[in-house]
Amino acid sequence: MFVTLLTDFGLEDEYVGVMKGVILGINPSATLVDLSHQVPPGDVRKAGWLLAWSWPYFPKGTVHLVVVDPGVGSSRRILCLGHRGHTFLAPDNGVLTPLLAAIRRPAIYSVENRRYALGKISDTFHGRDIFAPAAGYLSKGLSASRLGPRVKAFKVIPMRGIKQGSGFLEGRVIGFDRFGNAVTNLPADKIQRLLARGKIKIRIGRHLLKNIHRSYEAVAPGTALAVIGSHDLLEIAVYRGSAKRRLHLTEGESVRVAG
Amino acid sequence: MFVTLLTDFGLEDEYVGVMKGVILGINPSATLVDLSHQVPPGDVRKAGWLLAWSWPYFPKGTVHLVVVDPGVGSSRRILCLGHRGHTFLAPDNGVLTPLLAAIRRPAIYSVENRRYALGKISDTFHGRDIFAPAAGYLSKGLSASRLGPRVKAFKVIPMRGIKQGSGFLEGRVIGFDRFGNAVTNLPADKIQRLLARGKIKIRIGRHLLKNIHRSYEAVAPGTALAVIGSHDLLEIAVYRGSAKRRLHLTEGESVRVAG
Amino acid sequence: MFVTLLTDFGLEDEYVGVMKGVILGINPSATLVDLSHQVPPGDVRKAGWLLAWSWPYFPKGTVHLVVVDPGVGSSRRILCLGHRGHTFLAPDNGVLTPLLAAIRRPAIYSVENRRYALGKISDTFHGRDIFAPAAGYLSKGLSASRLGPRVKAFKVIPMRGIKQGSGFLEGRVIGFDRFGNAVTNLPADKIQRLLARGKIKIRIGRHLLKNIHRSYEAVAPGTALAVIGSHDLLEIAVYRGSAKRRLHLTEGESVRVAG
Repeated sequence: MFVTLLTDFGLEDEYVGVMKGVILGINPSATLVDLSHQVPPGDVRKAGWLLAWSWPYFPKGTVHLVVVDPGVGSSRRILCLGHRGHTFLAPDNGVLTPLLAAIRRPAIYSVENRRYALGKISDTFHGRDIFAPAAGYLSKGLSASRLGPRVKAFKVIPMRGIKQGSGFLEGRVIGFDRFGNAVTNLPADKIQRLLARGKIKIRIGRHLLKNIHRSYEAVAPGTALAVIGSHDLLEIAVYRGSAKRRLHLTEGESVRVAG
Repeated sequence: MFVTLLTDFGLEDEYVGVMKGVILGINPSATLVDLSHQVPPGDVRKAGWLLAWSWPYFPKGTVHLVVVDPGVGSSRRILCLGHRGHTFLAPDNGVLTPLLAAIRRPAIYSVENRRYALGKISDTFHGRDIFAPAAGYLSKGLSASRLGPRVKAFKVIPMRGIKQGSGFLEGRVIGFDRFGNAVTNLPADKIQRLLARGKIKIRIGRHLLKNIHRSYEAVAPGTALAVIGSHDLLEIAVYRGSAKRRLHLTEGESVRVAG
Repeated sequence: MFVTLLTDFGLEDEYVGVMKGVILGINPSATLVDLSHQVPPGDVRKAGWLLAWSWPYFPKGTVHLVVVDPGVGSSRRILCLGHRGHTFLAPDNGVLTPLLAAIRRPAIYSVENRRYALGKISDTFHGRDIFAPAAGYLSKGLSASRLGPRVKAFKVIPMRGIKQGSGFLEGRVIGFDRFGNAVTNLPADKIQRLLARGKIKIRIGRHLLKNIHRSYEAVAPGTALAVIGSHDLLEIAVYRGSAKRRLHLTEGESVRVAG
């Protein structure tokens, strides 16, 4: 069965490889897939988005392991839940916020059963000593409820919502990808509804865009454009360039779309 | 069966992981191998070389997936072809140039059959929505010809050739690897023929090398040397240093070998 | 069976992917796990630690392939040995020093049998032409002794030891991880013995720490702390920051722990 791994461990050290060794020691036939290990250290917000955008593209039965865990060794819990045939394992630090926003009454368990952890547990690498073995057993079919008691409350990160008025939408840049494309929190369907009423204007920082294009190539190299990105969210891009750098954008930057 | 992945997506985002999820959803027993995801954004030339240098080392039956695709969402086609038991899938933007240079009459198909794509196709991530599912089906044995009509013309990148005279060869630096070694387009066999006639001189920028060494260690640390690299091409290196930085080399730099 | 890969090849080029292609061509059912490919070029010391810290977490039968090999093409040998059901393959350049320090009488073989190499061997990429095929055959059960003659001496890197006096321990920083945590060569058990006798002081550079904490979160963000790290060694860290940068630490920096 499949196990995805999402961490802020980077690829310089042996941390990710060691976690894989532990998982494979428990379930030698697991297929491991890296989501990313380049999450900026401790950036639970970014990790949360990556997870929410990724899991639906994996087959049912996949275990999704998230170890972005600045609170390792403290009393923060480790959470496990099932959703639509997928299983999620992550620290209770808000990293599951975007995922949990879409689930009505999640049945979440606190990972406490030492039977499914390594014999010796370090204070600084629960990814290896608790998360990886739990993922190994889950990928063999262990039920989340076997890992520990059900929890009633869990940590949530405050997420800035969007403003919606008559003929306008206002949101924010929630992150950038490798290409410097700025992903906003403005969903495609709401944008489409504005578009259906006629022309639109998109204002971001000092920049004004008057169109939503279907491909980056639709504009000249170095030119800014708006597209509906692969997460079904409005993106601001620069063809053959970085919107982040060219337009001097930062996370949290306001984006206003008016009909 | 094996599927290799070559992209410019980097490893910070979830893009590569998501493509793998899609492939495994279609063919759960596929073995996925990363060639590189660190191709500089849109650098079809570099991606083309990496592909040409890699595929012969994989077993027959391997599907090679290339998504360096700045024209995503535009009318550029997606190409699929078979060669010596391998299958290649790539955008029609010249990235296949070094591969196709070695194939007489390639039978290339345009990937258009929506039956082998995801149900919903975004404008900005065909890697996930078209390439990955096609690779999944190809790895299960689907024939390239099932993906769409045969194409007669395809895009080719102009590649600078080499000059060959009596007792000399002239070529160029076509790229650098992680170590800063400069790979040229001068093939080993032609160099060997010059060498067979006696001593040679290699001139690159202001630098003159009078030997081809068999190992980096043959010279003192920090010293420049010429070797026959692993692609059977002449390389300029600096032992325990970067030829790129030490010798101030750039892509396209002229290299002249005289007997 | 499992094969781990540890190199300084980086992920920009096709080198790692090509090695995997060769291994899978020989053993299509091998499961490949990356330990790291971001070892700084030629840094056999760092690679040696990563290997020593990783292999015990993999299942018996795993083949561990190390290609940090600045001497490629020279007369340096390639070594292969078995230990506790694991098999190790590495250049004879000292990279095995931390591993071999823990083995009494290792039975080490020199990899020379061309029958288990590619037909054509380049001078600059033995990883592809010798290491990878050998790993492929080893992962199918080939005995190390089949690869070549037994060797009696092998290269060792001098490792600075620790000083131990009445009530104090003195060691050094041996490296940094992605987070900038400084790993020292002071083992947890010796630290615990000092701690058992009462309070301790840790001096590193100009900094004085008076405690060993169990989690990074135990201190305020930006504050330095000492922890027992995941390798059972003393580590100096900065919560939500880099000890390397904040405390201006370098490899080799002295660390003194006094009771």
